[in-house]
Amino acid sequence: MKEDGKAKLLSVLRGELKSPPPVWLMRQAGRYLPEYQAVRAKAGSFWTMSMTPEIAAEVTLQPITRFGFDAAIIFSDILVVPFALGSMVTFEEGVGPRMSPVKAINGLEHDPAVWAKKLEPAYEALRLVRAKLDRSKALLGFAGAPWTLATYMAEGGGSPDQRAAKLWGYRDPARFAAFLDILGDCVAEHLIAQLEAGADAVQIFDSWASGLPPAQFAEWVVRPTKRIVDRVRQAKPAAKIIGFPRAATLEGYDIYVRQTGVDTISIDTATPIRWAVQELGSRVTLQGNLDPIALIAGGKALSTATAEILKATDGVPFIFNLGHGILPETPPEHVAQLVAQIRG
Amino acid sequence: MKEDGKAKLLSVLRGELKSPPPVWLMRQAGRYLPEYQAVRAKAGSFWTMSMTPEIAAEVTLQPITRFGFDAAIIFSDILVVPFALGSMVTFEEGVGPRMSPVKAINGLEHDPAVWAKKLEPAYEALRLVRAKLDRSKALLGFAGAPWTLATYMAEGGGSPDQRAAKLWGYRDPARFAAFLDILGDCVAEHLIAQLEAGADAVQIFDSWASGLPPAQFAEWVVRPTKRIVDRVRQAKPAAKIIGFPRAATLEGYDIYVRQTGVDTISIDTATPIRWAVQELGSRVTLQGNLDPIALIAGGKALSTATAEILKATDGVPFIFNLGHGILPETPPEHVAQLVAQIRG
Repeated sequence: MKEDGKAKLLSVLRGELKSPPPVWLMRQAGRYLPEYQAVRAKAGSFWTMSMTPEIAAEVTLQPITRFGFDAAIIFSDILVVPFALGSMVTFEEGVGPRMSPVKAINGLEHDPAVWAKKLEPAYEALRLVRAKLDRSKALLGFAGAPWTLATYMAEGGGSPDQRAAKLWGYRDPARFAAFLDILGDCVAEHLIAQLEAGADAVQIFDSWASGLPPAQFAEWVVRPTKRIVDRVRQAKPAAKIIGFPRAATLEGYDIYVRQTGVDTISIDTATPIRWAVQELGSRVTLQGNLDPIALIAGGKALSTATAEILKATDGVPFIFNLGHGILPETPPEHVAQLVAQIRG
Repeated sequence: MKEDGKAKLLSVLRGELKSPPPVWLMRQAGRYLPEYQAVRAKAGSFWTMSMTPEIAAEVTLQPITRFGFDAAIIFSDILVVPFALGSMVTFEEGVGPRMSPVKAINGLEHDPAVWAKKLEPAYEALRLVRAKLDRSKALLGFAGAPWTLATYMAEGGGSPDQRAAKLWGYRDPARFAAFLDILGDCVAEHLIAQLEAGADAVQIFDSWASGLPPAQFAEWVVRPTKRIVDRVRQAKPAAKIIGFPRAATLEGYDIYVRQTGVDTISIDTATPIRWAVQELGSRVTLQGNLDPIALIAGGKALSTATAEILKATDGVPFIFNLGHGILPETPPEHVAQLVAQIRG
């Protein structure tokens, strides 16, 4: 009988123990797959792929077909929310995303109906995946967290130290909080709409949660995330929400788990998984945390790191994943080896 | 009577309480100062400045003259160690340091006499500063830690995720350990020579200590640092050593303090200073940890953050500093305000 990965993942999200754990990988539909590269060569750009439902659905399904992961995650980008708010987002090869820097909130689109219309391709992609995805596989939606989105919007692109957003927050805390709130409104709507379009659960990516002093982490990461979780739960009381405050301090992870209300916490590569099991494992489901670079390396480094994570998480509800997104240089055969090792 | 900042800093490094705390800032001799920019415009490049003793000495003294910091730190760069080992280092404006990627250890210069000769400009600069520096000011030397140096050498420059060094370490742990050992040999010699040339204490910068799983942090950060501390202490038993494993996890900071033998631990911006006081403050002197971006922001954000650090560290041996190097965009008047607030 075929194992039901969807049932398994949803059980674990509800706090039940499953061994071996369910597995999916952040950014699993991506450049490391030749079949993805083939689609991309035809589509042209990453953004076009994200915004064309048939293409997004196709690449979402590719890693499920190849590796049999327990969950598909919709192919999209965290910057669809800035796009909904009115930013023109472009992706340059080797440069990353670019947009006009946002300096004030009054130019932002406030109408949820407009957001929904602009983000309709993502929902259509989810419906297409839902229709084609094997019923034994879960489907995940996601969004960027307000702080991480603010770092891109304030800077007009990526930044090594999130300077523009930090400066805005330090210099004008009230208006910056309002900015995070508008972002949070749109993120909450986007997550709810993804759940309505067929997502079984959603993940909130706060990829730039590192580098913040405790007071700023509380105001810019924890408070806006709790606000989103509350809104999603109000609309969808049974919604399962995974939080990922990447590279937060251990104290930050602890506060995030205690205060935001997420069901599952995704652990980054550096955060000790043994610490997470001990300190967080009785309160939330854990997810993580293999180093994506160990997955590139393969061999003994990969099998040892994988075994350590499996051993450390034995006895708590756990979803095997990476500590950050899979990298384009990853040999697909290492992914196959990883899945085989996890499933024993 | 003029306050003796040197005596104060050295007392705190020995574990004594001083209030208000001594203060210096990482990268305090730098681009945010117009007088530095004037020297740089004449000298041409950052590397020429580092390697010309008279120029290095001049810019080392500039922030002492302007702000009266309690310590000068020699103007140099962590990449002088790769240079001593045979790498040709170039600095491109806006690109950062570049060198030929190092793939094996057998091409590296192993002769300490050659290292000493190549690094002589740094020692001459220290002697020049010592001769001109007010006797009431301390003088600090520094070096990059082996892991951080390895990340630049393996990549041939900076890298967002230290991928080349990680891959080397995962794929060939024995040779990578040998690489870290050669780096450590050179770092130890360099620190000892700086102490002999007049440095009152030294700091080891592990700027890329973030992102490492616990096993790799132990092997690549803690072990090589302990090896250096042991060697410096063997040559200079009274040497005071400040360690800076930037953005390590809280568990990483704790292990680093327990195992490396450093006297003082420098705390990065995100690591909660209250946590450091509570968990590390009874074992080592603390240093840190103002957000350099709060120093750019100025105003209430700066005064609040400064007051919080002063309050949290009241009662433990502490050196006021930033959580990372000062940024070129920092208004010098914010630095003056900071020093005035600290000194009450």
